Amino acid sequence: MKKMSEYVRDMGKKAKKASRFLATASSEEKNKALCAMAGALRDHCSEILCANKKDLEEGRQAGLSYALLERLTLNEKRVEAMAVGLEEIAAFHDPIGEVLGMWTAQSGIRVGRVRVPLGVIGIIYESRPNVTADAAGLCLKAGNSVILRGGKEALHSNRIIAQIISDAAVKAGIPQGAINLIDSPDREATMELMRLNEYLDVLIPRGGKGLKKVVQENATVPFIMTGMGNCHIFIDETADFEKAIPIVINAKTQRPSTCNTVETLLIHANVASRFVPLVAAALHEKNVEIRGDEAICKLDSRAISATEEDWATEYNDLILAVKVVESIDEAIEHIATYGTGHSDAILTESYSNAQKFLGAVDSAAVYVNASTRFTDGGVFGFGAEIGISTQKLHARGPMGVEQLTSTKFIIYGDGQIRE
Amino acid sequence: MKKMSEYVRDMGKKAKKASRFLATASSEEKNKALCAMAGALRDHCSEILCANKKDLEEGRQAGLSYALLERLTLNEKRVEAMAVGLEEIAAFHDPIGEVLGMWTAQSGIRVGRVRVPLGVIGIIYESRPNVTADAAGLCLKAGNSVILRGGKEALHSNRIIAQIISDAAVKAGIPQGAINLIDSPDREATMELMRLNEYLDVLIPRGGKGLKKVVQENATVPFIMTGMGNCHIFIDETADFEKAIPIVINAKTQRPSTCNTVETLLIHANVASRFVPLVAAALHEKNVEIRGDEAICKLDSRAISATEEDWATEYNDLILAVKVVESIDEAIEHIATYGTGHSDAILTESYSNAQKFLGAVDSAAVYVNASTRFTDGGVFGFGAEIGISTQKLHARGPMGVEQLTSTKFIIYGDGQIRE
Repeated sequence: MKKMSEYVRDMGKKAKKASRFLATASSEEKNKALCAMAGALRDHCSEILCANKKDLEEGRQAGLSYALLERLTLNEKRVEAMAVGLEEIAAFHDPIGEVLGMWTAQSGIRVGRVRVPLGVIGIIYESRPNVTADAAGLCLKAGNSVILRGGKEALHSNRIIAQIISDAAVKAGIPQGAINLIDSPDREATMELMRLNEYLDVLIPRGGKGLKKVVQENATVPFIMTGMGNCHIFIDETADFEKAIPIVINAKTQRPSTCNTVETLLIHANVASRFVPLVAAALHEKNVEIRGDEAICKLDSRAISATEEDWATEYNDLILAVKVVESIDEAIEHIATYGTGHSDAILTESYSNAQKFLGAVDSAAVYVNASTRFTDGGVFGFGAEIGISTQKLHARGPMGVEQLTSTKFIIYGDGQIRE
Repeated sequence: MKKMSEYVRDMGKKAKKASRFLATASSEEKNKALCAMAGALRDHCSEILCANKKDLEEGRQAGLSYALLERLTLNEKRVEAMAVGLEEIAAFHDPIGEVLGMWTAQSGIRVGRVRVPLGVIGIIYESRPNVTADAAGLCLKAGNSVILRGGKEALHSNRIIAQIISDAAVKAGIPQGAINLIDSPDREATMELMRLNEYLDVLIPRGGKGLKKVVQENATVPFIMTGMGNCHIFIDETADFEKAIPIVINAKTQRPSTCNTVETLLIHANVASRFVPLVAAALHEKNVEIRGDEAICKLDSRAISATEEDWATEYNDLILAVKVVESIDEAIEHIATYGTGHSDAILTESYSNAQKFLGAVDSAAVYVNASTRFTDGGVFGFGAEIGISTQKLHARGPMGVEQLTSTKFIIYGDGQIRE
């Protein structure tokens, strides 16, 4: 146990040292490394797939679900996508060094605000091994060192990917210690990472409720929670059904495992009797289970009775909770009570209800007449994303390269003292 | 114990409810309340001073230091300053609702980023009772509810101030629950506040190392650490002594108890023999104790030998650690090792060393040729400040009204679904 904590601390120390180099590295130096990392992934594709095979074999033996194994699987196409991802990150605008304003303040000192890296970023993530390359690339672009802590199911894959990209970065001139992977399934390592205040500037846990709870209870470092999504769509009484049905189907079924998938559908009472049969037919056709309140169960014989728990559940599956509400205010209230502040939508043709919903719903992304599935760094135009923050501090919503930065004040004086 | 935790939770619940009203309150509504709060402080000045007298009496009996009693003391002038402070906050630009950009993204959805309040802010602070009004005013301006947790030494003063301003705000149309004070010296209340995840969006502890440790170890809510300042001034070999001596004296003695006071002076070896006698004479004249390394002690007979601990100490007192360094790189390294990332200055006439220092020193405020004492929300032009963040997440350096906000994305669609 002591050894593991020393291992992580030592990694933190090296990462901190490397981060000081990265803070003043030029865009060219960073981009050269990113492209070298992409090239190295292509060159070593067969080794990556070989390691991935081991993970898959062990996963099958351990009885992982089909969905989990699918997320764990790499193939040539997915490795190529990782490489292209790094090249895309290289092509992004470099946010570091941007001066966000400079002004003359009291006594004539000039005060400027400059964008700088965060320093050392820890990332805890689950089974997708592509995150190893994506996260390392985004952190490097923003001038940060990274300590990666992937899921134990993907350890063989993560180990080889981290080694390949770290070696390539070092060859391209980035110091050792910029890209690190905790090469152990030991949970003590996660614990140590959460308490590495001396070296870690921020921890980004990507995962569900369980991880959130562990981090909240144990972390002493600043962290940004990502990926909790109990998302809602509210069908207002003026909703255009021809837009509404495809949006609900898209938000529920296009990729049910993601955090921006809709989990609860709220329907205005004045249109319930007309809308429910239509939407229920479309949902059942896509094999979506409906868990409805009393009114819904009356309108859809195939619906199952929802319990209180259903309103608070993020299914990440082909299940949808459905409820009839008397007004937009009840819908807003329901979302405030049960939502996780991720993505919530109103479907309406009423201008004032659209504006009301946008103002009153306190979520990272609030939609009018579009699918909640759009909440994504790529879609929003940030390029790749490191996760979707559902907290209000620092970053909210999709986090791209810019969200992996901080600022500092620089002050040019000429002998000024404070009176 | 259970009762105290229920009391704080109940307060959180009400604060959350009020925050939903505040989120959509107009600037006029908020400013009207701020001005009413200022007027009420003036109207009830004698009651405030009476309560303050009780605190001072109890403080004297408890043996509080002169400095602490001085910070605790209110008089008519200080109450007037609190009232003026609130009126100044009312006159600020309201950051809420500002659209920080809007663009057309994939599928033609329009994505905008809007500044919104954080929600409910908890503030833990020490003995100055004026913070009660300042903090409540800043939080209200940014559309947040606030839960105040002042020092037990100031409880009588804080209680009456909070009651006066809360009553005035309610009369002016702000809902009950927007401004709250934990009316108990019980430490269990602080503990509960640090773990109030259901209702608290951010906690801002204002205080020293002890409070920082308690919060880091126990808080499960997101927090912003403020006010840790082990600040440095580096006298480069090209420093202009005529600027340097007044800057060092100002940074050390203008108000030694503040977090932007210089605590360690680093002097380039090439100028030490000329500079040390001058600066030492000026410091001793101001009754500043010098704790020096070997080289300093040789140059100043009154200097006391510094220990390793001195380099890491925030004295907040008339004591200065002084060390000779061989180069700007050694100075930067020393600051990286012992600094708290608050405010650090280089005094130099060398353009390239100025630029190097600004780039390499990773602190909230990095100065060239000016006193570190300028790190202040008022000086930087943010109006009042809630504290000075020494962490990199969310806000860094002086925090004004804008730093008490978050953002959300609003998306205008026309039936778009994700392909």
